[in-house]
Amino acid sequence: MTVTRNEVAPNRFRESFGRYFEDFRVGDVYEHRPGRTLTEADNTWFTLLTMNQHPIHFDAEYAARTEFGKPLVNSVLTLAIITGMSVSDVSQKAVANLGWTDIRLTAPVFAGDTIYAETEVLSMRESQSRPHHGIVTVKTRGSKADGTVFMIFERTILVPHRGHGVED
Amino acid sequence: MTVTRNEVAPNRFRESFGRYFEDFRVGDVYEHRPGRTLTEADNTWFTLLTMNQHPIHFDAEYAARTEFGKPLVNSVLTLAIITGMSVSDVSQKAVANLGWTDIRLTAPVFAGDTIYAETEVLSMRESQSRPHHGIVTVKTRGSKADGTVFMIFERTILVPHRGHGVED
Repeated sequence: MTVTRNEVAPNRFRESFGRYFEDFRVGDVYEHRPGRTLTEADNTWFTLLTMNQHPIHFDAEYAARTEFGKPLVNSVLTLAIITGMSVSDVSQKAVANLGWTDIRLTAPVFAGDTIYAETEVLSMRESQSRPHHGIVTVKTRGSKADGTVFMIFERTILVPHRGHGVED
Repeated sequence: MTVTRNEVAPNRFRESFGRYFEDFRVGDVYEHRPGRTLTEADNTWFTLLTMNQHPIHFDAEYAARTEFGKPLVNSVLTLAIITGMSVSDVSQKAVANLGWTDIRLTAPVFAGDTIYAETEVLSMRESQSRPHHGIVTVKTRGSKADGTVFMIFERTILVPHRGHGVED
């Protein structure tokens, strides 16, 4: 499950987030909350801190001359947030993020947009190389408050069986 | 070319970064500079600003109990910086980032590592839907100062022909 509260002493409960391998079921969809409203500051800071100098993300005069008419939110920022939103329910017990495939950008995103993430479990298998661990592939979608899907990607993670995590 | 200096008035030169479609050649490899040393602050701030709560990125006591022994740098941060480093030479004239495929994470990255990016041009074709624009697919690699490759991905961008960019 997403969150468990383990009684570590009488009347004392410790939170634990994320899923063990046994907690996934192919076909289930998890809606992640909270959402997040993107700001101009997010976009400018993120873009420049990651050494990206494309003016469409931080020069409003340049952006006004493009087909979008205003600055586009950097798609690596939306990828980072959509991935980040999914962690507490999907991968917070994962040993490793093995990679992403097919990150598709299906609509532009602008400052002021509020975004949400949801994740569908695509497949599960036992790890060949690591006992007591499994490999889970998920499809995560990012959408705006009006329902527009702007990003879809698949991600694969290595997750422990119950009793074999770092906290166990 | 990466940078041109256009004489916009006598003895006055304006920089312009990025490549038009005609400036790419399949098989060429561009080494991006400068590199960047990753810090603990980068990792903690990036992880939490993107709503990712996995303790391996910011809880040194938790990380000490994993096989890595210390906090791992968030792979979306390395993806963002490796992509960002490639922009001024690859996509600073691009109209859109169309997506990434097959982002593979081939080695762990830690605070203190200095990282570099390089990009190979895989394929080029004219856009079917947009006159005077082309689609370029590249493979970008992230490596550490000791040569360890920690990330490989493919990215596809939509780029204008010379004379059809926002600055033209």
